[in-house]
Amino acid sequence: MKGIIMIIDGMGDRPIKDLGYKTPLEVANTPNMDKLAEIGINGIMDPISPGIRAGSDTSHISILGYDPYEVYTGRGPFEAAGIGLDVIAGDIAFRCNFSTQDENGIIVDRRAGRIRKGTEEIAGSINSLKLEGFEDIEIIFKESTGHRAVLVLRGAGLSDKVSDADPKHEGKPPKEVVPLDDSPEAAKTAAILNKFVKTSYDLLKDHPVNLKRINDGENPANVVLPRGVGAVPHIVPFGEKYGVKAACIAETGLIKGIGKITGMDLIDVEGATGGIDTNLENMTASIVEAAKNDDYEFILINIDGADEAGHDGQMEEKVKFIEKVDAVIEEVMKIDDLYFILTADHSTPISVMDHTGDPVPIIIKGPEVKVDNVNSFNERAAAYGGLCRIRGSDIMNILMDFMNKSEKFGA
Amino acid sequence: MKGIIMIIDGMGDRPIKDLGYKTPLEVANTPNMDKLAEIGINGIMDPISPGIRAGSDTSHISILGYDPYEVYTGRGPFEAAGIGLDVIAGDIAFRCNFSTQDENGIIVDRRAGRIRKGTEEIAGSINSLKLEGFEDIEIIFKESTGHRAVLVLRGAGLSDKVSDADPKHEGKPPKEVVPLDDSPEAAKTAAILNKFVKTSYDLLKDHPVNLKRINDGENPANVVLPRGVGAVPHIVPFGEKYGVKAACIAETGLIKGIGKITGMDLIDVEGATGGIDTNLENMTASIVEAAKNDDYEFILINIDGADEAGHDGQMEEKVKFIEKVDAVIEEVMKIDDLYFILTADHSTPISVMDHTGDPVPIIIKGPEVKVDNVNSFNERAAAYGGLCRIRGSDIMNILMDFMNKSEKFGA
Repeated sequence: MKGIIMIIDGMGDRPIKDLGYKTPLEVANTPNMDKLAEIGINGIMDPISPGIRAGSDTSHISILGYDPYEVYTGRGPFEAAGIGLDVIAGDIAFRCNFSTQDENGIIVDRRAGRIRKGTEEIAGSINSLKLEGFEDIEIIFKESTGHRAVLVLRGAGLSDKVSDADPKHEGKPPKEVVPLDDSPEAAKTAAILNKFVKTSYDLLKDHPVNLKRINDGENPANVVLPRGVGAVPHIVPFGEKYGVKAACIAETGLIKGIGKITGMDLIDVEGATGGIDTNLENMTASIVEAAKNDDYEFILINIDGADEAGHDGQMEEKVKFIEKVDAVIEEVMKIDDLYFILTADHSTPISVMDHTGDPVPIIIKGPEVKVDNVNSFNERAAAYGGLCRIRGSDIMNILMDFMNKSEKFGA
Repeated sequence: MKGIIMIIDGMGDRPIKDLGYKTPLEVANTPNMDKLAEIGINGIMDPISPGIRAGSDTSHISILGYDPYEVYTGRGPFEAAGIGLDVIAGDIAFRCNFSTQDENGIIVDRRAGRIRKGTEEIAGSINSLKLEGFEDIEIIFKESTGHRAVLVLRGAGLSDKVSDADPKHEGKPPKEVVPLDDSPEAAKTAAILNKFVKTSYDLLKDHPVNLKRINDGENPANVVLPRGVGAVPHIVPFGEKYGVKAACIAETGLIKGIGKITGMDLIDVEGATGGIDTNLENMTASIVEAAKNDDYEFILINIDGADEAGHDGQMEEKVKFIEKVDAVIEEVMKIDDLYFILTADHSTPISVMDHTGDPVPIIIKGPEVKVDNVNSFNERAAAYGGLCRIRGSDIMNILMDFMNKSEKFGA
């Protein structure tokens, strides 16, 4: 018996006037999701608790059975893990932008002309840097997509209680990083970051990639601005926590990072962009292949496009993308000996263009679920299902129980 | 966008044989509440958690998003705040009775002939009292309604771990206050209270108000008996916690005290008695006025009569009062740009004549709620609504999410 949790990122929504006060999921033509609802047990699910506006990261953490209030301090560690860095508990990790700083120390372009090429070479000249006075601290630096990168500080006496260096708006110098508590660790970490930002400019301003960019009339990527600090948590690996071998099929660095930090195998999918243009055929093929692979008893799947459409306020695109995802469901439903959980990690309503705290619909399909009367998959119908209202943190316990993988508590 | 939580105190009930096994809310003619159910999302709500018999105070505390197990030690602080005392964290507060003690030290009337007049003068001779040996402790004493009063002890080395002085029954002397733990603070506080009770008799036995009462054949208010001890909690003000300016429209000292301790503006309503004879027209006018006042983004409303009828076992009066409240709902429903939450703080069933742990019905009406199929407001129908079953502690998170006043947790 296998278990799959498929999370359609940001799929939940609110009633929209232009859709006759229905949600995108209510109006989307989703025969396979509806069939799944019909043969499964349904409910609504609060990723963290009712009304709490979960991030994709905190929601996935909660759904995987970890307490986000305990393990989540910021996005950095998950982004770092997501691009393949082997972070370890205690590392302090940051998301970074390659930006453009002028000779007066002013940030004139936070995204360095949306640089696409050459960041690997630029990152290479920063990675393994030793900062004067902080030679005990290991600096791990790696480019991500576009103008993005990740910084990891490793060593003794560090803290995640520091502010961002990113000034958020152009026309300002890098923001001085300040400690957010009175600890010597926070003071030390802030000092390291301020020195790191300055040093990045010294190292990058005449970097060959940047000289060529200037020559080509493009903004150079001559300074690195860290933000989104987080401490890599001590986390019991997923496989150890539940006794199952797990794989993660995700599109974005953030969710891949959660898979990696929890010790899952990451399965890369060609053409998986995280947008509405993603290659869902390839996603489907990878899911089916992983499900057939006897090495995996559990697969976490995240498909991101509906969230992107929600953030962009694109109602029709959200509806259409959900309809495309429906074809993925059709294939997953064919897999035998499976408990299949379909849900979202949060709502990203078109009207709000950001995450909200609404509950999301959830279906559990599998041999021993108590099939209920719900026969369509959407935010409203799900509330009448046999699961009633559960929390993200309940899901793994329910799944492991169905898969007969959990211990009895008591006699 | 504004938010209103209207709490019909003790409205919930249980099936009553004389009503054909329906509840007062089920039989009451409430077209406006039913309309609200029809255009809103419905559910049942456990003020604290299923089966827990909440007080009005602990329920309101929970609904406002504070943990009653953390902030509530007793009723005293809320009663004190409710009559206008500026209590501060750490104060030890008590509800008190003016009682009648005879020359043998026996309490012959716990309510001092239900004294109505002169308590302000009597209280004035006790307020600011210095007790010998405890000159460092500030004594704040103020009359409340009828035979009731409030005592606040302020200073170092005090504790709320002390027993009551009220013997609960006539024919006994004041109960000796004893410390309830081994701390020196509890011992000190108990000693202060015993001295306070004795001193109150010395100060009041020949008070002019009492000499006149004796002359008129009335029982004198010649001793003060504290009970309902509580420590004033450290509480994050409501406005700071949620970033909204809040008002409280309540009838009873207890609920007013909760509003005051959480830093809300208290709006007094003429003729608001807290009984079934209360002036609901004035309540309605105050609610509508507060809703139109741009200073307020949030209003907490408590209407108390149904609870009183429940405590008194008055079935017909409870039904009739609920029908009267229905007219208030009609006016509140007319307010624009509003998230309106209608619920109760607990059930006060006619059969029990006290609070029970049953869930209560709840409606949320507002622009973006997912309207469900429920079209009447009562304990039974609500269970079939789109909210399923939530807790008091979820309500503010849900409301702030709808009002777009909450922060995202994660990315």
